[in-house]
Amino acid sequence: MTLAPLSPTARTTVNRGRNRAVEDRTALHALLDDALVAHLGVDVGDHPVVLPVAFAVDLDGPDEGGTLYVHGSVAARWLNRSGATTVCVTVTEVDGLVAARSAFHHSMNYRSAVIVGVARIVTDADEKAHALALTVDHMVPGRSATLRPSTRKELAATSVLAVPLHDASLKVRAEGPVDDVEDVEAGTWGGVIPIRRVADTPVTGDDASGPVPADVVSRAARLGRVARAMA
Amino acid sequence: MTLAPLSPTARTTVNRGRNRAVEDRTALHALLDDALVAHLGVDVGDHPVVLPVAFAVDLDGPDEGGTLYVHGSVAARWLNRSGATTVCVTVTEVDGLVAARSAFHHSMNYRSAVIVGVARIVTDADEKAHALALTVDHMVPGRSATLRPSTRKELAATSVLAVPLHDASLKVRAEGPVDDVEDVEAGTWGGVIPIRRVADTPVTGDDASGPVPADVVSRAARLGRVARAMA
Repeated sequence: MTLAPLSPTARTTVNRGRNRAVEDRTALHALLDDALVAHLGVDVGDHPVVLPVAFAVDLDGPDEGGTLYVHGSVAARWLNRSGATTVCVTVTEVDGLVAARSAFHHSMNYRSAVIVGVARIVTDADEKAHALALTVDHMVPGRSATLRPSTRKELAATSVLAVPLHDASLKVRAEGPVDDVEDVEAGTWGGVIPIRRVADTPVTGDDASGPVPADVVSRAARLGRVARAMA
Repeated sequence: MTLAPLSPTARTTVNRGRNRAVEDRTALHALLDDALVAHLGVDVGDHPVVLPVAFAVDLDGPDEGGTLYVHGSVAARWLNRSGATTVCVTVTEVDGLVAARSAFHHSMNYRSAVIVGVARIVTDADEKAHALALTVDHMVPGRSATLRPSTRKELAATSVLAVPLHDASLKVRAEGPVDDVEDVEAGTWGGVIPIRRVADTPVTGDDASGPVPADVVSRAARLGRVARAMA
């Protein structure tokens, strides 16, 4: 795992709230591990479009800083059509609602990574199968090993984008309300509502039977205990 | 509340997975109510940038279809600088992980709204104060009424964008795995890990004391029971 600090270029440098920028690859990787969806921004001509996408990270991938694989047919089509190749992938986890003493100081505790890079449409079947397995394992760790291999037809019907993780910035807020002195002295309450994601008991499909496999049980159990980095 | 169907123009028409497009304003509004953050895409020249933002909806707002207010100084600065005014605001809630019998059919249950529109920077102090109150109440319903009014200085330091809700599309997946017949017949398990957001007990700030106010207690209690529309 790369432990070098993030090296944001001008385009991912955090200009607002610079004190919230975290230059730590470990925290970036932890957030990408925790999050389930990313939001991919693609320029489609006269405006950007932002789409939710499943994703996975390969720290040993072919790109500088590791490779972020994004599963997305819509985005791939736009890239092919528009020729625009620089995309933005943003991953956000909300960890709390910050109830301050004034509207102005209300905030959220969150972790958010912004990755900007030239997207490469993955065409190699092996790399695509690898990216797909990583995406499945990101959803349910260990699951890809229990599945039959993808067919050639399935791989052809799957679009995967690869984005270098090099140009990334991370912003984190993990504290109570920061209020004006007069508002604190007035004695009104301020605090945080902590937020996390949980999984309920896995639901067996209508067309399935048998015991819920161990990887699924384990994933559901662990989701409620996701370590909220820096919280 | 507007009950007219969504009227997506070409730019928000769902081209992929058209069967998942939901033309229902009520479902759109329910999603916008459930979600805590939106992802705002702004074109910054040669590429888009996607940022997490707090937001609020005013169905009686001045814009067609209602107004989506987005809290965001960074985006406002870019809009001022680049002159690019068409933005994309995407709001996504993940409701489940869909474990299929093949990597190809793995999916997620989710609700996602994509709103494209010309962003207006709110300059009127009254509209800005109103948008800020709505944003606070979106986080903790009822809270804005318990706070002192925002000062002129605070309003001047707050940037709010208004985006019409008119041009919106909603995509929903809310079902078990859809597998190939052969994979189902092979007898392997398929199903869904349901996912939801919960709040833990509110944490009183280090500089605060006294009982947690009723609006905060109520918000924390309700978060775990968010109605997952169409789930």
